[in-house]
Amino acid sequence: MKIALAQLNYHVGNFESNTAHIIQHIKKAKENGADLVVFAELCICGYPARDFLEFSEFIEQCETSAQKIAAECTDIACIIGLPIPNNKPEGKDLNNSAYFIENGKVKAIVNKALLPNYDIFDEYRYFEPSTEFDCIEFKGKRIALTICEDLWNTIENPLYITRPMDTLIQQKPDVMINIAASPFAYNHDEERIGILKDNAARYNLPLFYVNHVGAQTELIFDGGSLVFDKSGKLIDELPYFEESLTYYTLGENGDVSFAHPSTVKLERDSDITQIHDALILGIQDYFHKSGFSRAILGLSGGIDSAVVCALAAEALGPENVMAVLLPSKYSTDHSIKDAEDLVANLGCMSQTIAIKDITDAFENALHPQFKDLPFNIAEENIQSRSRAVLLMAMCNKFGFILLNTSNKSEAAVGYGTLYGDMCGGISVIGDVYKTQVFELARYINRNGEIIPQNSIVKPPSAELRPGQKDSDSLPEYDVLDAILAQHIEHRRSAKEIIAMGFDEATVRRAIRLTNLAEHKRYQTPPILRVSPKAFGMGRRMPIVGKYLQ
Amino acid sequence: MKIALAQLNYHVGNFESNTAHIIQHIKKAKENGADLVVFAELCICGYPARDFLEFSEFIEQCETSAQKIAAECTDIACIIGLPIPNNKPEGKDLNNSAYFIENGKVKAIVNKALLPNYDIFDEYRYFEPSTEFDCIEFKGKRIALTICEDLWNTIENPLYITRPMDTLIQQKPDVMINIAASPFAYNHDEERIGILKDNAARYNLPLFYVNHVGAQTELIFDGGSLVFDKSGKLIDELPYFEESLTYYTLGENGDVSFAHPSTVKLERDSDITQIHDALILGIQDYFHKSGFSRAILGLSGGIDSAVVCALAAEALGPENVMAVLLPSKYSTDHSIKDAEDLVANLGCMSQTIAIKDITDAFENALHPQFKDLPFNIAEENIQSRSRAVLLMAMCNKFGFILLNTSNKSEAAVGYGTLYGDMCGGISVIGDVYKTQVFELARYINRNGEIIPQNSIVKPPSAELRPGQKDSDSLPEYDVLDAILAQHIEHRRSAKEIIAMGFDEATVRRAIRLTNLAEHKRYQTPPILRVSPKAFGMGRRMPIVGKYLQ
Repeated sequence: MKIALAQLNYHVGNFESNTAHIIQHIKKAKENGADLVVFAELCICGYPARDFLEFSEFIEQCETSAQKIAAECTDIACIIGLPIPNNKPEGKDLNNSAYFIENGKVKAIVNKALLPNYDIFDEYRYFEPSTEFDCIEFKGKRIALTICEDLWNTIENPLYITRPMDTLIQQKPDVMINIAASPFAYNHDEERIGILKDNAARYNLPLFYVNHVGAQTELIFDGGSLVFDKSGKLIDELPYFEESLTYYTLGENGDVSFAHPSTVKLERDSDITQIHDALILGIQDYFHKSGFSRAILGLSGGIDSAVVCALAAEALGPENVMAVLLPSKYSTDHSIKDAEDLVANLGCMSQTIAIKDITDAFENALHPQFKDLPFNIAEENIQSRSRAVLLMAMCNKFGFILLNTSNKSEAAVGYGTLYGDMCGGISVIGDVYKTQVFELARYINRNGEIIPQNSIVKPPSAELRPGQKDSDSLPEYDVLDAILAQHIEHRRSAKEIIAMGFDEATVRRAIRLTNLAEHKRYQTPPILRVSPKAFGMGRRMPIVGKYLQ
Repeated sequence: MKIALAQLNYHVGNFESNTAHIIQHIKKAKENGADLVVFAELCICGYPARDFLEFSEFIEQCETSAQKIAAECTDIACIIGLPIPNNKPEGKDLNNSAYFIENGKVKAIVNKALLPNYDIFDEYRYFEPSTEFDCIEFKGKRIALTICEDLWNTIENPLYITRPMDTLIQQKPDVMINIAASPFAYNHDEERIGILKDNAARYNLPLFYVNHVGAQTELIFDGGSLVFDKSGKLIDELPYFEESLTYYTLGENGDVSFAHPSTVKLERDSDITQIHDALILGIQDYFHKSGFSRAILGLSGGIDSAVVCALAAEALGPENVMAVLLPSKYSTDHSIKDAEDLVANLGCMSQTIAIKDITDAFENALHPQFKDLPFNIAEENIQSRSRAVLLMAMCNKFGFILLNTSNKSEAAVGYGTLYGDMCGGISVIGDVYKTQVFELARYINRNGEIIPQNSIVKPPSAELRPGQKDSDSLPEYDVLDAILAQHIEHRRSAKEIIAMGFDEATVRRAIRLTNLAEHKRYQTPPILRVSPKAFGMGRRMPIVGKYLQ
């Protein structure tokens, strides 16, 4: 039996394009003699469809698309994922389902049993878990078809009380197929390979695993679909961050063979390489799927905006990136020079708009109220917000999308101005700690200087008052980032982090600042997610709460 | 047996104040001879604690608080709600639990079985559902204790496949007690009474129901705890939007008696009365629980900012409200007059800051880019954003919190400026449609004019260009609001709404605008929730999606 794995980039709610894309790959697989082509979980509607799933018309459109696809399935079978109405009177209204389509008809329906409902996942908001499991007979083989999380309950301290494969294995399947929507995080590929390898070995069956590729706002799917033999050996690994259609032959004895060279990675890509590739795809899909092509950003001469500008130029082409220098009276000459050097290196568009007259106008207008009160954060923020007004005016006049350039360290501790530098349509590096931003800059420069060396080596500064440095008000970033990672990614309390050897006052301050900044993060753009715990939909903290403050 | 119901206002994560507040009411109930005092669901940590629940130290603090409370329970029993570790190896790490405490010790633990995971609820993110149900013996009575949603599965097309009371009733209980965290929506009191009445009658048992009161950022709990006799008759209804401690005697035959006059409402309060009272409590708790006392807002002379200003003055005292008039060259004289009249009627603070010099400075700075391109939304938004910069500067200098004054109709269709009038710490009327804002204004004026009549009767306008009216670009609000309610509250598609008799082009445009504005709403403040479907945590829509656009 010849099986094709289709690792594709879908668009949430875009039935027309998703359906056409699936049909195109069915045709191609048929031309190449495949008996079965496998698409990803919920591919019909894209993932995550979120509360679109609460519209019954949306569910009807999924079924309509599935029927169009079924009509194409002559002389080839396919597996697609879609939400369908729960046919039982009790429970949630939907199932997260897979259709096995053969001879133009839906031959079997498999419903997902283990519904992830943590971090960015909300599946129990919509779906009723399945309690019935049956293998599918096809061309003399018995297929154990499961959906994503259904194979993820093999770990210690399991999250669910059942394990679908333990039922399915009793029906003596010949092969496992798992369709997934498993988003990227820089450490997720290894975890995924480990879990699936364990399944193949545990059940002594070959395993075909198909993932999404492509970004849906903040969530980036990295692809990396996988094939294991029945000993649990990884025998093929599809490319990351790009589409793929590959073919395998499942032999009589359960052996898997294929004609193309195996692309199993001999060593894993570094975290920074993966993050870089993920951010490029995240930027591209944000723009393409929302129908925009041109980005704008404020370029300060610092490392954060430099890295974002370089990533945007790579993702969209430098001709589609507008860098705006917005110097104030506190901007240093070297910052302006560093920004100009970057623009020259990238070949992107640029403009310079000085903000002094604007901040003067604000300060004059406020003089009756402020009188002679000392310069403080009010005046600092006026600078940052004046820049945001200018950048948004450029967006409104010329159709750019503003890229936010805040990094995860400053987003954590609230070192940024709400409605100022925290503006933007999408946050590019809001899930990248400052220490990782430096690594990204060096990675971007791997084949020659793009980001000026001076932007990398000089001490970080917001330049909102004379001589200001980040280290005036924050711990050094290597210490801060280590504390933040323990608190945010690992949900460790101050007491636990102090016990790891960090300075008590520094830990308490970092955690307090992080939780006091919740109200700011609530109003900031979606953040491209590259870590196992990003700010945004996967981290839901009270605003008016007292704990950790 | 004498039972006290304690309907209290908790603060999420504030263990010190919650624990002290509970202990104080245990002492008071003991002084008044109660045998048992009942507190609400998850009262120890407040509701919703959200991802605080993922910190194991947070769970330990809950247990520490419970032990402090237990030490006070001599000569009186109490029921409290708290998260506890799941003692089974499989499943989620926590249970949503109730402790029955007697003689200083935890005598029984009840775990919640039906975990709401829709709209604003995320309980399956944290908790494993219970599958074991046992009554509690106390002073010769058998108590069927359940937690909130556990009694809500009696409706048609039930959301869950089990019903805990069907197991408990087999143990022949004498009384039902339900502890809850059931947030306000203007139609929720009737639904709640109906469901609970049905339970009392179905199981032929008296029922005591204790709810939270008080707001936690956007969620407002209205109290309204309830007592039913075993025929299902509502015999007492605790006050709404305030704390209460009341006493009941459960007789030998299951009859419930009490010494105070019953406060069962003879008729339900109007929606607008309820919304008004909810918003007042929502504003108060947002400020008090976040440690601020003074509000600021921009006052345009229009109805939205007038209503918010009046609500803030009532909630915080007019001496704590700063209204800022920010006229531009497009502001009309009557708008300035209407704003001044309101300030005079309320007795709040006010300042006037003209924005012309600021917007001129922006336009001059942008002239090299904008050249002679025609005035458009770029210049309109510069006005709105300049006002936001001024208001935020006042916040930064003087410690105000900015109130957002956007209504639900404009938040829906994106008729507002991101980083401009969409700014603020909390949105007061973001869940109130424009037509309801007019009703609120009339309600605020019920005892005499507070909001100038002219603000109520004049055609709504953003005044960002000469002669502008909302109706230039939007349908009339009575039509728009009816369409939006069908789409947002009832998740109806364009086709369904058109079939109800609305104009096709108007419906398609309203729905398209609503879904195109998702990226704006993502970055706006939390919205005080007064309807069954508010923008914010209870409505989770894709941003880069295609459906409905």
